[in-house]
Parts: sequence; structure tokens; C-alpha cells
Amino acid sequence: MVAASAEARIRETGLVLPPPPTPFGAYVEAVQVGSLLFLSGMLPVVGHTPLYIGRVGSGLSVGDGYDAAKAACLSGLSAARAHLGSLDRIRTVAKLGVYIAASDDFREHPKVADGASELLLSVFGQSRLPPRIVLGVSSIPLGMPLEVELVLDINP
Amino acid sequence: MVAASAEARIRETGLVLPPPPTPFGAYVEAVQVGSLLFLSGMLPVVGHTPLYIGRVGSGLSVGDGYDAAKAACLSGLSAARAHLGSLDRIRTVAKLGVYIAASDDFREHPKVADGASELLLSVFGQSRLPPRIVLGVSSIPLGMPLEVELVLDINP
Amino acid sequence: MVAASAEARIRETGLVLPPPPTPFGAYVEAVQVGSLLFLSGMLPVVGHTPLYIGRVGSGLSVGDGYDAAKAACLSGLSAARAHLGSLDRIRTVAKLGVYIAASDDFREHPKVADGASELLLSVFGQSRLPPRIVLGVSSIPLGMPLEVELVLDINP
Repeated sequence: MVAASAEARIRETGLVLPPPPTPFGAYVEAVQVGSLLFLSGMLPVVGHTPLYIGRVGSGLSVGDGYDAAKAACLSGLSAARAHLGSLDRIRTVAKLGVYIAASDDFREHPKVADGASELLLSVFGQSRLPPRIVLGVSSIPLGMPLEVELVLDINP
Repeated sequence: MVAASAEARIRETGLVLPPPPTPFGAYVEAVQVGSLLFLSGMLPVVGHTPLYIGRVGSGLSVGDGYDAAKAACLSGLSAARAHLGSLDRIRTVAKLGVYIAASDDFREHPKVADGASELLLSVFGQSRLPPRIVLGVSSIPLGMPLEVELVLDINP
Repeated sequence: MVAASAEARIRETGLVLPPPPTPFGAYVEAVQVGSLLFLSGMLPVVGHTPLYIGRVGSGLSVGDGYDAAKAACLSGLSAARAHLGSLDRIRTVAKLGVYIAASDDFREHPKVADGASELLLSVFGQSRLPPRIVLGVSSIPLGMPLEVELVLDINP
């Protein structure tokens, strides 16, 4: 059985990808090595404008964090599409990292990270769910609440 | 010379692996891409029950941290065995990450991370020691003291 | 067109690589899997002596952070050269991670991370700039201000 097309799922679910992100410094958004596509840390931005500023658990709610994780992950998909031409070239997500600016006593990281995970689920389906690393960190560039790391396995 | 069997070393040293971990959200514990096995962040848990809660350096001692790092790494080996059938399919550990919830002035990260490193040493031997990334972070899901990241190189 | 030699660029720009780093615990500095070379987290040290102690944004300036990121990245290139024999075997940098010990309200991460990025630019050129993950963290081993992660794509 062939997995359903990621591009078809995006059309069906009405998801809108933001414009591909552009670097904040001397780096690029994606590099391919063999079948692995390494992406830069993805932020909840449109262009260089943050969609969210603040920390999850103080200032921003868990729901805001969920939405920010979804937005950052959408930005990652947009970067991948810009590099690959089509998300249908993605076989698997090899790594999802969600790094959340949160207070020391924050404990609800999984609920925030699910904003990215459930987006990937809707685009790639249950059979292609990735492993996940979730950490609470001190700060994210420009004061944003989180950053998403993706490593993708693609058809070369 | 063939490296000594990881499964044999585990039997000889009397190490007991916990049951394989199960996800706290919409992700999986392991995904294989070519010869690389990417694992989710491993926590010091049995099932969904934390073995340790708190921060290293305030509340938990460096010795607790060492033990927690060993427990999280054992959980990773259990996840790998569940995926691979046998740890003898592991050729090398490509990456060990140890992310420790610690106060800003904590400095003894290497002693904590050695709980994972020395476990890998006892299972895979000196010739297969991995590179290591160690960071102090603000918080870990559910208030646990640390999280361990493993990327494994396996016989496909 | 062949990319300019990394070793030639180093000679031309007068960059001096420090001695290869040595582990602070039970790990190694580099492991190769297929064409990927995974390096341990690189610190701004010479031997086991920190070049910088403190946090960026309180104690250390953004300029200090830039210099520390460059020093840690140089240490990574030294580790890679020690493993590979020559930096000319590096085809691409697949991942650059810069993890900065900073206060919760720090926002100038990109300016610090550019210390590593601009070094890689000068050695590998514009066409081989890597993707980048930048995070503010609570603490770095031994109280240093940052740690650099590199994954390299090499000619096997």
C-alpha cells in the first residue's frame, strides 16, 4: 500500500503553508546529505516577524504554545517544499525536536509539542510519525517561545 | 576482531533493561533511516512513572543525576531492542545527548552524563564510545531531571 | 567548478586551529557513520582550560559570545582534522548547533551564533553554509558560555 500523498492531505485539510523562512544570519534553511534533509531551527514567524513573543507558562498559555509549535512546524514544511519541490518526496520524518522557552517549573511540554506532532500526523499519517525530543530551554532567538528541529528522510 | 556481543555483555554484567518506553504524545520511540536509528528523548521512567523528579544540583544530587542518566539510557536500549530484535545489530552509537535540568550555576554536567556514557561503555566497549553533547536546560517534561538522546548506527 | 580547498582557505586567512580537544568523560570527539561525521559538543577551550567562563548578556558581552562561538567552532574543525587527516575531505556541514548559556530575556542569539557561522563561511565558502539550530540554555559544562554541535558530510 502506498502512503497517502502529503500534498493531497494538505489540500484536503485546507492547511496553508507560510512563505518559506529566510535566515536571520549566515546560514541556510536546508542541506541535503544522502537521503537526509537537515533543516534549520524553525520559528513561529512570518518572514522575520514573530507570531508569538514570550515564554510558555508565564505570559503565553499552553494553548498558545501548541499554536506556536504548529506554526513553526508549518514553516519547516514550507522550507522543505521550497528545497524539494514537493512534500511528496518525504518518506519519513527522522527527527522532531521541540525546544520550549519555559519557566523552570513548567511540566506540560508534551501538550505544547503536540502542536507540531499533530500537524505532522495530519500531513504524513500515523505510519510516519517521528521520534521526538522535547526540552524546556532558557530562551529562543528574538524572544520567541519555541523552536522546532526537523530531519527528514527523502527520496533522493 | 569482532566486538564482544552487547547482549552477552548485558547478561554477564547482570544489567536489567526496563520495559520499552511508550510515548507521552503523538510520536513514536524509534525510526530507522538507512543504517541510522533515531530514538525519541529517553526519560528516567518505568512506564509513564518518573523514577526521579527535580533538578540536579538543587533537590537532586549529582549522584542522583548519574543514576537518572543511566536509567534513561537503559530505557533507550530497551526501545532499541524492541525495534531491532537484538542489541547485537548495533554497530556504533553515533550520538549521545544528555540534557540536564539544572540551576544556572551548575557545573558538574560531565559527572551526570557519565551515568549514560559508562553504561554504553559497559555494553558496547571502549572501541564503540560515542561522541557526546551535554547541556543544562530549564526543564524536562513532567519535571524530570534529564533526558537522553541516542542515534544508533545499525546493521540494516 | 570545484569548491576552493578548506585547507587552502585556512592558510590564506591565517586562521590557527587549536590542538584537537580531548574528552571530559567517557566519550570520544568524533564518530563516523557512512558519510556523516558526528562530533561531540565543542567548547571554547584550549585543552581542558576554558577560554571563557560566564553567561552571555550578564558578565559576558555579545562580542565575547561571538568570539567564544568562533573558538568552539575552531576546536570542532581541529577535532575533524584530527579524525579525517584533512578538512578537504569535508563536502558539507550538515548541522550547526549553537547552544548559549544566557539569561531568560536574552534575544541576540543570532549575533553570537554568527561567530561560528562566519568562521564556517570563511573556511567552506557561501555554497556550503549549513543549516543552524540556536538555543539559549541554562548552563554549559564547567560554566562556559556556549557549546557548538557539528555534523559533517565527508568523502568516505
